[in-house]
Amino acid sequence: MTINVAQLCELLQGELVGDGETEIHGPSQIDKGVPGTVTFLANPKYEDFAYTTEASALIVSRDFTPRNPLKASMIKVDDVYGAMMSLVEKFGDVIPREAGISKNADVANDFVLADQVSVGAHSVIEPGVTIGKHSVIYPQVFIGRGTKIGEHVTLYPGVRIYPGTIIGDRCIVHSNAVIGCDGFGYRPDEKGHYKKIRHAGKVVLENDVEIGANTVIDRGTLAVTTVGEGSKIDNLVQIAHNVVIGKHTVIAAQAGIAGSASIGNHARIGGQVGIAGHIHLADQIEIQAQSGVHSGKHPKGSKLFGYPAIRYNDYLKSYALFRQLPDYKKRIEELEKQISALKGDTQ
Amino acid sequence: MTINVAQLCELLQGELVGDGETEIHGPSQIDKGVPGTVTFLANPKYEDFAYTTEASALIVSRDFTPRNPLKASMIKVDDVYGAMMSLVEKFGDVIPREAGISKNADVANDFVLADQVSVGAHSVIEPGVTIGKHSVIYPQVFIGRGTKIGEHVTLYPGVRIYPGTIIGDRCIVHSNAVIGCDGFGYRPDEKGHYKKIRHAGKVVLENDVEIGANTVIDRGTLAVTTVGEGSKIDNLVQIAHNVVIGKHTVIAAQAGIAGSASIGNHARIGGQVGIAGHIHLADQIEIQAQSGVHSGKHPKGSKLFGYPAIRYNDYLKSYALFRQLPDYKKRIEELEKQISALKGDTQ
Amino acid sequence: MTINVAQLCELLQGELVGDGETEIHGPSQIDKGVPGTVTFLANPKYEDFAYTTEASALIVSRDFTPRNPLKASMIKVDDVYGAMMSLVEKFGDVIPREAGISKNADVANDFVLADQVSVGAHSVIEPGVTIGKHSVIYPQVFIGRGTKIGEHVTLYPGVRIYPGTIIGDRCIVHSNAVIGCDGFGYRPDEKGHYKKIRHAGKVVLENDVEIGANTVIDRGTLAVTTVGEGSKIDNLVQIAHNVVIGKHTVIAAQAGIAGSASIGNHARIGGQVGIAGHIHLADQIEIQAQSGVHSGKHPKGSKLFGYPAIRYNDYLKSYALFRQLPDYKKRIEELEKQISALKGDTQ
Repeated sequence: MTINVAQLCELLQGELVGDGETEIHGPSQIDKGVPGTVTFLANPKYEDFAYTTEASALIVSRDFTPRNPLKASMIKVDDVYGAMMSLVEKFGDVIPREAGISKNADVANDFVLADQVSVGAHSVIEPGVTIGKHSVIYPQVFIGRGTKIGEHVTLYPGVRIYPGTIIGDRCIVHSNAVIGCDGFGYRPDEKGHYKKIRHAGKVVLENDVEIGANTVIDRGTLAVTTVGEGSKIDNLVQIAHNVVIGKHTVIAAQAGIAGSASIGNHARIGGQVGIAGHIHLADQIEIQAQSGVHSGKHPKGSKLFGYPAIRYNDYLKSYALFRQLPDYKKRIEELEKQISALKGDTQ
Repeated sequence: MTINVAQLCELLQGELVGDGETEIHGPSQIDKGVPGTVTFLANPKYEDFAYTTEASALIVSRDFTPRNPLKASMIKVDDVYGAMMSLVEKFGDVIPREAGISKNADVANDFVLADQVSVGAHSVIEPGVTIGKHSVIYPQVFIGRGTKIGEHVTLYPGVRIYPGTIIGDRCIVHSNAVIGCDGFGYRPDEKGHYKKIRHAGKVVLENDVEIGANTVIDRGTLAVTTVGEGSKIDNLVQIAHNVVIGKHTVIAAQAGIAGSASIGNHARIGGQVGIAGHIHLADQIEIQAQSGVHSGKHPKGSKLFGYPAIRYNDYLKSYALFRQLPDYKKRIEELEKQISALKGDTQ
Repeated sequence: MTINVAQLCELLQGELVGDGETEIHGPSQIDKGVPGTVTFLANPKYEDFAYTTEASALIVSRDFTPRNPLKASMIKVDDVYGAMMSLVEKFGDVIPREAGISKNADVANDFVLADQVSVGAHSVIEPGVTIGKHSVIYPQVFIGRGTKIGEHVTLYPGVRIYPGTIIGDRCIVHSNAVIGCDGFGYRPDEKGHYKKIRHAGKVVLENDVEIGANTVIDRGTLAVTTVGEGSKIDNLVQIAHNVVIGKHTVIAAQAGIAGSASIGNHARIGGQVGIAGHIHLADQIEIQAQSGVHSGKHPKGSKLFGYPAIRYNDYLKSYALFRQLPDYKKRIEELEKQISALKGDTQ
């Protein structure tokens, strides 16, 4: 698709400052813009690049006033980020997967193909599986017995769904994620040999959930491991058996949630965070990357940091002093010396 | 399967308190019990749920005396957890995989199918592989040249076994785990360019090992990376080249063991723990989640915490004071002021 | 291959001390050497094993003088490690993959098979893909639309390449790694519901890059996520959208690099390290395992440790005092008591 700057501006209901004739063939990042592309300035931290970018058009906020001359034409809009997102959609050339079942897929006899569903090559669909319309099963996916998949779902290559999983509408699961495998549950006998605990539960992903590549979600022991509506889980995350994650919660890469923990709604969990088993975290909790949360006593909306995690600001204050410990050590030694001397004086 | 409460009680050799007529069709978790299910109370922490659960039957310990009225019938047994586990097995409807080689699998000419072995669609078995009887290779598995697999082994969809791996009897490997890939070994030349070190070793999983989804175990450089008998490894764990893990050791999700480290028997490694290369950890070591173990000097049975890890209780004590550092800072400043004043007084 | 010790010595241009007749059929690790193998002593830490190893030949440095009698014949060379590496290559029996396209692969109509390329069973190659000569695509690999792959590349079973990825010459990608999936980018609406940000960027792996098993590299939002020439990434690493990694940098297992961060050349990132988004790290930075780097202000060549990461030695000093905090607590209390007493005295 090609469009000129003026047309672009009209499309975005923006205000044009500069030349409108240049042809635009795609979007670019501000520090890597090339002629013929449109870029944007949303984060003020990147303002310097506005003056050096080679992009032909620059989308800015209505109230932006450049402090230096710009090479790019400016398109002023109310919502910079929203404008850019809609352009990315516009320029994108998503090629829809062909509907139907690949001749190289292995599909159970009882499978009924819904409207506009695509099942790719070398995918396996076991008996008792249902898939809602407009869903896309890429090649090389495994869907275990009795799994129920909603409409407009996308499962990327290599996704493994163990039996009995339930996946809501519009969910996206990225490559090589594993949903519904057994939890890490064993019972040691008197010799300390571990006997496997059978996992009879399952996993439910509610509507509009996205699961990152290589993430693992264990099935419940007896109950259901749940990811709530609209929650987004990044890559390489571990979600153990019986965990319940609320709605509209985000969990960054490589975080791990131990067994039977639950997390509220609208929480934000940083990368590589660990959350201990059997605790409940309140809504809107925000956890700094790499923290280890051992307790569920933090009130709603708390911002946490540390290992074990405490209040974010408290951690920073203590850590600043941690860094100065060698200095405090000397001051304590000096105090001891002076006290000694004083005691000598007063004796 | 359906059974009534009295029959269930007899099966478990328990003592019935309450109605025996209700039909039971499955197990449930105590806080999520529904009528027609049996649940259990093993952890006293969950006792409150015993009085509110909707489950029809509640398995408790012989010495349990409810402090409030129960809705559920009680089944008193010697071993609550064991009873529940045997019920889960009983109610479970595991459907065995069909024996034989799927017509859509790719199997080397020299492969000899043992008794009751199942090889799923789109799996690949390279030359020189042997698989013991009653083993199940799910679809989409890759088994490299010369791999030896024992009896009653289960490899879930997407497991990748690099050549020359040895897997003992009754091992279970979950989806997308990778066993036997090259270790992370390079040698920088004089320009700091890394030259790959060829990995000529292999991986051995002894009998009764379970490996979680998306876990990776590197082959040895020259020697053998080993997971000892009965050890259980959770999801997303990294086990580097030449590592030796003892017997009956458990390693929780996302832990990482660096190259040439070794871990004793009956150890318990928490989630996201890191263990440095080339150290040896004694038997029965217990490591708190997220700790970083840099030394092998900890005696048998040590409980460790921290980064670098120290004794568990020492870490907790120091961390409690870390949290109070802002207070100690003030106290030190106050002491300095008072000393100053005193020195003025005494001069 | 079999060769005797004297022939081996000649091959390595070494100096023989001891018997040259014994036949050698392979390499071994010094602490696990068996008769008929050659081993090596490079790390002085392992010297004790030199006197106990059962290996028939021991490669040592020219200046090595044993302090005890050796059972093995000694081969003295200039570069012990290099000699051993060349032997491993020599004894290795790498069986080349058959060139051509497996009849069970799914390859787009427009795919042109280059010289000596192998495409394994159950692999999928989408339209618009090019693969350079001598590259090996193992079974069960997915290569999305428009991906460009160089010469002498190896993609192991289960690798997933999302559309538009560019992979340079001699790259190696291990099993179940995922390259080019969407980044973790959402925009919350006024209700806190997350709307997915379309990812229009891509991933570029420059020449001679190696990617470990189950590692994930997200595509750029608009720009390119890049791994620079000669860089090596271990298993289970997370590389988020828009990250740029320099040349000849190594990143150990389970490290995570957050969005839009960049890392210089010749850096060394330890296992389980976390690097915050939008920071730039200088060349030759060295980061201790499990550290969390929150700032890009560290000069070239810095060695970092901690959480947030500070200078390595500073962290160790502060941590040593952290461990002694209970002692300092007592000393501060004692000081307070003494000051109190002194004030009483002087009043």
